[in-house]
Amino acid sequence: MEINYTPIKFKDGILTLLDQRKLPLVEEFVTCVTLQEGYDSIKDMVVRGAPCIGFTAIYSLALWLKKNQGKSITEFKKACDYLKEARPTAVNLQYEIDRVFELIIPLGDIIHSEMYNKVVEFGHLQITNSEFQNRTMAKLAHADLAKRLGDRKYRILTHCNTGFLACGSIGTALGVVQHLGEQDKIENVWVDETRPYLQGARLTAYELVKLGLPHKIVVEGAASYLMREGLVDAIFTGADRIVANGDTANKVGTSNLAILAKYYGIPFYIVAPSSSFDMETSNGSGIEIELRPTEEITKIKGQQISPLESQAFNPSFDITEGELITGIISEKGIALGSYENSLKEIV
Amino acid sequence: MEINYTPIKFKDGILTLLDQRKLPLVEEFVTCVTLQEGYDSIKDMVVRGAPCIGFTAIYSLALWLKKNQGKSITEFKKACDYLKEARPTAVNLQYEIDRVFELIIPLGDIIHSEMYNKVVEFGHLQITNSEFQNRTMAKLAHADLAKRLGDRKYRILTHCNTGFLACGSIGTALGVVQHLGEQDKIENVWVDETRPYLQGARLTAYELVKLGLPHKIVVEGAASYLMREGLVDAIFTGADRIVANGDTANKVGTSNLAILAKYYGIPFYIVAPSSSFDMETSNGSGIEIELRPTEEITKIKGQQISPLESQAFNPSFDITEGELITGIISEKGIALGSYENSLKEIV
Repeated sequence: MEINYTPIKFKDGILTLLDQRKLPLVEEFVTCVTLQEGYDSIKDMVVRGAPCIGFTAIYSLALWLKKNQGKSITEFKKACDYLKEARPTAVNLQYEIDRVFELIIPLGDIIHSEMYNKVVEFGHLQITNSEFQNRTMAKLAHADLAKRLGDRKYRILTHCNTGFLACGSIGTALGVVQHLGEQDKIENVWVDETRPYLQGARLTAYELVKLGLPHKIVVEGAASYLMREGLVDAIFTGADRIVANGDTANKVGTSNLAILAKYYGIPFYIVAPSSSFDMETSNGSGIEIELRPTEEITKIKGQQISPLESQAFNPSFDITEGELITGIISEKGIALGSYENSLKEIV
Repeated sequence: MEINYTPIKFKDGILTLLDQRKLPLVEEFVTCVTLQEGYDSIKDMVVRGAPCIGFTAIYSLALWLKKNQGKSITEFKKACDYLKEARPTAVNLQYEIDRVFELIIPLGDIIHSEMYNKVVEFGHLQITNSEFQNRTMAKLAHADLAKRLGDRKYRILTHCNTGFLACGSIGTALGVVQHLGEQDKIENVWVDETRPYLQGARLTAYELVKLGLPHKIVVEGAASYLMREGLVDAIFTGADRIVANGDTANKVGTSNLAILAKYYGIPFYIVAPSSSFDMETSNGSGIEIELRPTEEITKIKGQQISPLESQAFNPSFDITEGELITGIISEKGIALGSYENSLKEIV
């Protein structure tokens, strides 16, 4: 049975967002009926994850169109530019807003109700497409796992958060887990807590509770223990960016897992839509890694952990070398090594 | 210049302990003038680390002998048995108490002042011996590093807490760091925060602040990033137990580091006194790993992090395979691979 959880709903002119800042202990929803409320939800991180931010932006523009019939397209352009400022570094946000604007231009210079309907429909379509992409990837993953390990129940280890909270639909790496769960193929999910921001312990664990799937949270230091004890069948993570030779940027700690998996002979997969592929960059040394504030490590939930005199060093991502990756799975197909050629063929 | 910090001092009949429960933000001392106060300090974890617990026990027995002159040795035996209960699973505690009792027996059946003096002297000697052992190990480590990498400043990564707070004197792996620091050979120390208990972020960082050595705290997931960027010259950790083939039990996460170090070609050392060697056990599969409560992961400083429905899996130690270890350093010498033979020669 397919399950469809989403943190974003749009119905009868109301955008309802699950407030991700309060998870996992409090489940509260924020409702938006104006562009400003959508803007605030993006800016204040009620929603997170590139796909979810994009969907929220589309529906926020629909809300503006509904309230501003009779106004000029120039006014709408201003609303679009304003919304882009809600999270200035989110490339996906700019991209989706531009797409909505281009959709509207052919419909005339004065805002009318058809425009609202068109944008709402476009939002729905984006979410549906995204789920279709994710389900395609999940099926490819399942098929490859079954070929390697037999079609049975699996113990999967995953890192960071890649499920419906981040992606709106079922998600990438956790989409694989959800799909396997729907087929009753999950024995256990090992959830890396994912320091410093604890996306695993807070968000992935929440998703797995909602999906009713058996799981256990582990510290990142326990990965070798688990693999050595034979408790991990495969590892799935998402990706922020995949370059031409398969080198992959993802949440810090991903590369550790890939090296351990290679050592123990466990399949390690990257699951990401083809929009994450950057075929212009030849290898991982061309990817810049964001360094985040020291306080994300030295404080937890506002409480100082380490000496006030001590600093932390906080790279947010790392590079996993293509040669460590068993398979890179996108909606266009699965590449299994020799990525210089295999990724080109897929894209 | 040699520095000698210690969390344990005994002077003029007063045992003074640094209250490690309040570190790193509060520096408070607990003073003990009775056996009961020593007992409470061990039980309530004012002191921690096998060596420190042992030293505290010796001085606590001295305090009893001072206050109970004229009583019989049978009464002293009762005091010894009572003190053993302060931390029933701490083997080292039982061992040191038995040694003190054996020291006292030849001195007569009635408690007298010479017994007190003898035990105080024994306590001092144990701390001195321990520091001598640790300094011997540190010099062996420095010599091997210099041979491999040249005698220069190093970037050292370490895990968990192995400095003066745990060991009373300079410590094992962090003893190496302290010794290198005294020779002005430390460029930077990468401190693994060491989830779930955060011994690195709380205690090792505190020790490095006290020693005035440059350091940065990192999450365990950042280890591969640091090594790939060429920012780590060598890794040093302690050990809970080393068996005949070099397989080593230590704080969970140690084995991850050893596998990453092998992959990146970085020297990985274990530093531990020969009392940690267990030559009766042939390999790591004979070592039982303690599983700790789920709450150590799901709560941080008493605050719930993950969903209430989610459990964690919390192995406290892992096994690092001997073949991944560049060198095992004890006060009796350094073994460099082929541990079946090399460890036997040392012990």
